[in-house]
Amino acid sequence: MELSLAKIAKVIGGEITGDVNKKISGAAPFDDATENDITYAINAKFIKRLDETRAGAVIVPLNYKKKSKKNLAAVKMPYVAFATVLKLFYQPPKPETRISANAYIGKNCMCGKDVSIAPFVVIQDNVSIGDRVVLHPGVVIGNDVIIGDDVEIYPNVSILERCVIGKRVIINAGTVIGSDGFGFAPDGKQYHKILQLGIVQIDDDVEIGACNTIDRATFGKTWIRKGVKTDNLVQVAHNVTVGENSVIVAQVGISGSVTIGKNAILAGQAGIAGHLEIGDNVTIGPRAGIAKNIPDNLVVSGTPEMPHRLWLRVQRIMPKLPELNKKILEIEKRLKKIEEK
Amino acid sequence: MELSLAKIAKVIGGEITGDVNKKISGAAPFDDATENDITYAINAKFIKRLDETRAGAVIVPLNYKKKSKKNLAAVKMPYVAFATVLKLFYQPPKPETRISANAYIGKNCMCGKDVSIAPFVVIQDNVSIGDRVVLHPGVVIGNDVIIGDDVEIYPNVSILERCVIGKRVIINAGTVIGSDGFGFAPDGKQYHKILQLGIVQIDDDVEIGACNTIDRATFGKTWIRKGVKTDNLVQVAHNVTVGENSVIVAQVGISGSVTIGKNAILAGQAGIAGHLEIGDNVTIGPRAGIAKNIPDNLVVSGTPEMPHRLWLRVQRIMPKLPELNKKILEIEKRLKKIEEK
Amino acid sequence: MELSLAKIAKVIGGEITGDVNKKISGAAPFDDATENDITYAINAKFIKRLDETRAGAVIVPLNYKKKSKKNLAAVKMPYVAFATVLKLFYQPPKPETRISANAYIGKNCMCGKDVSIAPFVVIQDNVSIGDRVVLHPGVVIGNDVIIGDDVEIYPNVSILERCVIGKRVIINAGTVIGSDGFGFAPDGKQYHKILQLGIVQIDDDVEIGACNTIDRATFGKTWIRKGVKTDNLVQVAHNVTVGENSVIVAQVGISGSVTIGKNAILAGQAGIAGHLEIGDNVTIGPRAGIAKNIPDNLVVSGTPEMPHRLWLRVQRIMPKLPELNKKILEIEKRLKKIEEK
Repeated sequence: MELSLAKIAKVIGGEITGDVNKKISGAAPFDDATENDITYAINAKFIKRLDETRAGAVIVPLNYKKKSKKNLAAVKMPYVAFATVLKLFYQPPKPETRISANAYIGKNCMCGKDVSIAPFVVIQDNVSIGDRVVLHPGVVIGNDVIIGDDVEIYPNVSILERCVIGKRVIINAGTVIGSDGFGFAPDGKQYHKILQLGIVQIDDDVEIGACNTIDRATFGKTWIRKGVKTDNLVQVAHNVTVGENSVIVAQVGISGSVTIGKNAILAGQAGIAGHLEIGDNVTIGPRAGIAKNIPDNLVVSGTPEMPHRLWLRVQRIMPKLPELNKKILEIEKRLKKIEEK
Repeated sequence: MELSLAKIAKVIGGEITGDVNKKISGAAPFDDATENDITYAINAKFIKRLDETRAGAVIVPLNYKKKSKKNLAAVKMPYVAFATVLKLFYQPPKPETRISANAYIGKNCMCGKDVSIAPFVVIQDNVSIGDRVVLHPGVVIGNDVIIGDDVEIYPNVSILERCVIGKRVIINAGTVIGSDGFGFAPDGKQYHKILQLGIVQIDDDVEIGACNTIDRATFGKTWIRKGVKTDNLVQVAHNVTVGENSVIVAQVGISGSVTIGKNAILAGQAGIAGHLEIGDNVTIGPRAGIAKNIPDNLVVSGTPEMPHRLWLRVQRIMPKLPELNKKILEIEKRLKKIEEK
Repeated sequence: MELSLAKIAKVIGGEITGDVNKKISGAAPFDDATENDITYAINAKFIKRLDETRAGAVIVPLNYKKKSKKNLAAVKMPYVAFATVLKLFYQPPKPETRISANAYIGKNCMCGKDVSIAPFVVIQDNVSIGDRVVLHPGVVIGNDVIIGDDVEIYPNVSILERCVIGKRVIINAGTVIGSDGFGFAPDGKQYHKILQLGIVQIDDDVEIGACNTIDRATFGKTWIRKGVKTDNLVQVAHNVTVGENSVIVAQVGISGSVTIGKNAILAGQAGIAGHLEIGDNVTIGPRAGIAKNIPDNLVVSGTPEMPHRLWLRVQRIMPKLPELNKKILEIEKRLKKIEEK
């Protein structure tokens, strides 16, 4: 496909400087782009080197002022614009819309139009599947599951009984939705399983990473709300709620009954103890261990959690601990000497 | 199903106060229960609010003394009693006991009675499967595996050759049992694989979470003993032994040749270095990094591990480190001043 | 199989002391070996007890000097020699070389000779598969994937479209290769997916553990170079490069665009922040949180990372923090007293 810069500008809402008729046929990173590609330059590092890219056009921030021989498309949010441009040129072709003769489909399956069901998919009984859903090979859909329109589920994902998946949800390979929550009643000798009777509900526009484990609630629902994005190997325990448009980076663990607000960011390998409330717009640093509630809008890091700026200072002191210890011993000696006088 | 309180009391061993003929048809949490449900109140928080639940009956601790208009069932272990009541009302129906025509079953499979084998299950050669076993879709059972009675294995679980699974074991979706241990001999340039010739043995009444990885032993066995419960995304390396009724919370990693005693609790995201011995009744705090043996009955936390109470105090000091550092610098100045006099 | 010690010595390059005609029929660990087994003794602990093993022969280091009644094979690298001996006796039989009638194979599959494709494997379109490749049950191979000779892929692994796998690669069960990188452009309200257009390339002689997640690059490739070994539950984000013969232990997380050098060792549960460069021969301690570049040949540990020896000292101080805090308060009092005089 080939599009003029003018046409691209219409789609991304940009203001063109240079040749509006310039034909663009692809998009690529700054240093890899060729004459026919459009690229983007957000931060100072690339903006400074703007004339060095071979790209036929560059998406820049609105406040970009310098002169350049390059064709420029100035937009409010260049990275979002680049995301859009990528979709223009590269939106991958959907798999053939057909139901494989090698898939297994149970009783009373309500199946939308233009779905794609790959070989060795299992759809158990009373499942409802929306329009244009794509189920890759090895996907297992349990009894009474509901899946919305335009959902794509990658290979070997398991969605267990009664879970509910919204529209435009993407679930990456190997993930488990609706495994039993980790609930046991100890009698002093052994553990008795607490039946996990709830479900997992995943709302619209969520993307779940690969090999996530999202447990069903004991009662009610574990709830991943609209627009949430999770990276790989994320653990979400029973009865957790993750608020709208929150982002959970790889290997984060969220314990049972935690509530996370809207627009939160949980960086990689962080852990949240059970029953806590994490507010809206909270950012939790990488590898942080959170043991108490975090009010809205805070940025916290460390174990125990503390304001992120404090954590940066604590981090600088930690390698000096042996030295500090030595100083204290020395101070004590000097003090003793003085006191003895 | 509807049961009188008297009937329920017989099952859970409780002492009824109130209407023994009260009919109960379900069980629910304190705040969600309706007139026909039984609920439970363990801790002070719920016991204080006892009259607020709409439940038709409440399971309370034996030592509960206060008067209440509610129908009460006083038992020694209310949470265990509630687990039992849940099973009374909600034990999920077992899948149809039939072997799917879409399953693949190898040579010499010894198969018990009333098993349920879903579509696209693979059972390789010389496998032995007990009575009432349920294999969900996409499960792969390797050559020479032995599976006891009443085992349930959820979708897309892989159990590799020669592993042995006891009775009443539950394995949640996506888990791998019997992957190769991580053993390589370095020659200074590259690594040579050490064949992993052992197995994984899982004893009776174990529940394994979703997406666990339990490696086979180099020689002998990796051994998950009776009654152990693991949460999701747990890593168990080769030649580990986990003692009876120990509990391993999500994302814990146990390195090779570690031995864990009975009734231990490993909280979420903890890690245990190789070849260590963790005693009976040990509790390891969340995110703890264990680098030495832990004797019986200790509660340890932190990295490095230390007594849990000490860790709580250390945690309180850590955010003060920049302040302490400042104090020390100041003290040194003041000391110098005095010394100079 | 039975081999004389002389024959074994030829294979492992050893120097025999004792009976070169001694017949050996197996290999086993020091304390489990029987009269017909060969074992090995590397470290002082076993060398001291050399006469206690029942093994018919012992592999020892070249510098082993003591007299022993045992038949000895002295070699430069005993552990590598033992790895070789294990392969002599126990190399597991390859699965039957046949393509299951229950596998699904798409269009234009180029398939080498002597391959083994298990039931319910899915090979999508335009896939190239080398000679002697073994695909276990439930494996999914996406469109346009290339797989080299002598590769073994364990059950329920997903390899997504266009990824490239070298020769002699082993991929353990449940792993996902080529899931989408975690890339989203925020517009202040929601996140826009950045299409992930690159691939994963895995070079020759790599072994990938169970339930790994290795994301495809945004552009270009995520690259696992020759001889790398990863343990279980490892996360490799988009555009990461892992250098030759590096070792990544269980539950490590590597963020996007990180470059790791040759012969590096990343111990269990470590995490590496995005866009960092980790040099050749670097060792990163268990649970370390790496937030800056690490030059070649360093051994670092801790969060924040520091030289490993310093970290050991810091670890010894940490449990003393409450005590140090107390000392400082006391020192201040004593100082004040002196100053007041």
